[in-house]
Amino acid sequence: MNRFPPERLHEFCRRVFESFGIAPADAAQAAEILIVADTRGIDTHGVARLKAYVDLMEAGRVNPKPKIRIVRDSPAAATVDGDNGLGMTVASWANKLAMDKADQVGAGWVSVCGTNHYGIAGYYVLQALKREQIGFCMTNTTSIVAPLWGAERRLGTNPIAVAFPALEEPPIVIDMATTSAAFGKVENAIRREESIPEGWAVDAEGRPTTNPTDVVSGGALLPMGSDKDRGGHKGYCLSAMVDLLCGPLSGANWGPFTPPFIMLKTTQERTVGKGIGHFFGALKISAFIDPTEFKRQVDDWIRTFRATKAAPGTDGPLIPGDPERQAEEQIRREGIPLLGPVVDDLREVSRRTGVPFE
Amino acid sequence: MNRFPPERLHEFCRRVFESFGIAPADAAQAAEILIVADTRGIDTHGVARLKAYVDLMEAGRVNPKPKIRIVRDSPAAATVDGDNGLGMTVASWANKLAMDKADQVGAGWVSVCGTNHYGIAGYYVLQALKREQIGFCMTNTTSIVAPLWGAERRLGTNPIAVAFPALEEPPIVIDMATTSAAFGKVENAIRREESIPEGWAVDAEGRPTTNPTDVVSGGALLPMGSDKDRGGHKGYCLSAMVDLLCGPLSGANWGPFTPPFIMLKTTQERTVGKGIGHFFGALKISAFIDPTEFKRQVDDWIRTFRATKAAPGTDGPLIPGDPERQAEEQIRREGIPLLGPVVDDLREVSRRTGVPFE
Repeated sequence: MNRFPPERLHEFCRRVFESFGIAPADAAQAAEILIVADTRGIDTHGVARLKAYVDLMEAGRVNPKPKIRIVRDSPAAATVDGDNGLGMTVASWANKLAMDKADQVGAGWVSVCGTNHYGIAGYYVLQALKREQIGFCMTNTTSIVAPLWGAERRLGTNPIAVAFPALEEPPIVIDMATTSAAFGKVENAIRREESIPEGWAVDAEGRPTTNPTDVVSGGALLPMGSDKDRGGHKGYCLSAMVDLLCGPLSGANWGPFTPPFIMLKTTQERTVGKGIGHFFGALKISAFIDPTEFKRQVDDWIRTFRATKAAPGTDGPLIPGDPERQAEEQIRREGIPLLGPVVDDLREVSRRTGVPFE
Repeated sequence: MNRFPPERLHEFCRRVFESFGIAPADAAQAAEILIVADTRGIDTHGVARLKAYVDLMEAGRVNPKPKIRIVRDSPAAATVDGDNGLGMTVASWANKLAMDKADQVGAGWVSVCGTNHYGIAGYYVLQALKREQIGFCMTNTTSIVAPLWGAERRLGTNPIAVAFPALEEPPIVIDMATTSAAFGKVENAIRREESIPEGWAVDAEGRPTTNPTDVVSGGALLPMGSDKDRGGHKGYCLSAMVDLLCGPLSGANWGPFTPPFIMLKTTQERTVGKGIGHFFGALKISAFIDPTEFKRQVDDWIRTFRATKAAPGTDGPLIPGDPERQAEEQIRREGIPLLGPVVDDLREVSRRTGVPFE
């Protein structure tokens, strides 16, 4: 495990994106989104994914100079076509549109088609906090999840992110795949040659497995809850909700027909829309209540939950966003830790793009 | 187990509500919401709860003639104060406001304070379907859930409901508590003297339990996912999201400070707002995409998911809303089945209110 200064990794990613003809501002933003993931400890969605983006760009599957446009528009809602641009570029554009609408009429909701994987969902909802808004963000993704009682990949890990500002306390930031575990954790288990816990995945026949390589060789992740008794049907419902808001509502592909992403699948059964889909929402807090009063209550909420009696054998409940905040403190001090195979990937990206890595 | 015609139970509930001075139209609507729950097989939230509402009304804890008013208003958002009215009355009013806003500007989001338990969340999102909208509905509820790694009740079962219309297929209707199991299922296990599955609950010390009476004697339900490996932290995040949107955003009570509901608790630690809170959302589909195209894609989605290969030992995945639809078919044929203790409760309500039951 080696540690790298965030600035240096940002510079490398930015130049890699630029080498594919992406505009400097967009390349810098895409790099920022990867580095924010690593800085928040979400190492599965940071520079570890750079090679996958490079694979997509080399294959010509991402438009480096998209003409992003609004397809339908009303005061509180819109659909955006990302023209197959880089997900981070299209998503930032559409998220800004949702926040602008919320500033104007109290709420803004934007569905997006013709887009690609956008990094961490949490990045986008953090932007809403700067405007005294509550931010919402979802995306559908390449299918790797079996619905409860299914033996086939039918859904992506379909994350949901939501952020609420506080006054003196740090904000509450929810950023979660609607699976028991994010796919990146399976990737990391494969890189580390470790097994995965029961409840995360099934093999190609739909049988429970603890071998992470079963997931990439035809198996699937399970929705959060894993089984009926623990709410696996509800995890499937949430994943379906994300898929319907991102896919059919925007005109993007959905479910098993989402375009392939590296490591997950290489073929697409049929096409039912454009690219993958995102869904952004923003609520202006002052449209509902005095923002200072709201934030004071959120402070109280956070302190109340921190004071909860701990269950036996635990340190007590966390506040959503705590793990990322703790990771961030350490990483800002010590640098971004990268596993050996990730460093190898970055060196390969360097060779393929001509951008020097070290 | 006795079966009763829905019309007869509706008539009884309506007259019981009226006996407390609730306006005839509001009493009929509240009765309808209970009967829709029973008709959809959600027997935990139907007439089985009538006695709890009667307890609240007898204790003077519900205002039979509320002056519901808009506290803040903008084109796509509002906050409503329910003046401590019956939850079904206040919720129907606020849900209509959200749908009206969506009709006008594409999206409508309404937070509600000063309200009470409103029956099933699913009822409200079904109304949005009649307007070619996607409906969202949440409420916080009396605290009975421990956050992951907590040993105290800090959250309600905080349900989320979302409905999407289809064209030839029936709609997709998600209606779920953010716990592994709804509290009503624990109530039913107590009534039936059965144990509950692992993963549903902890006892008063925060230890896992399968005894449903542990839940009412100081224990707590677990968020969906139950434990870390199966996403219990994510279930806690979703429950927190519902609580923050319903409580601090509207000015209602939140978390452990929600007002008591019968069987759950009798005292309130402190007051941080007005009543409990709801949160309604509506998205006009035509603000995003052609509604017929959307519904055609939803049909395709449903058929694709129905055709998914089944996991070993199962009949394959369901579509959200299937269990309620299956229950409804049988109940429309055979009547609403009520457990003996529920019938006893209704007879007691009859004695206390003077409304004849049979």
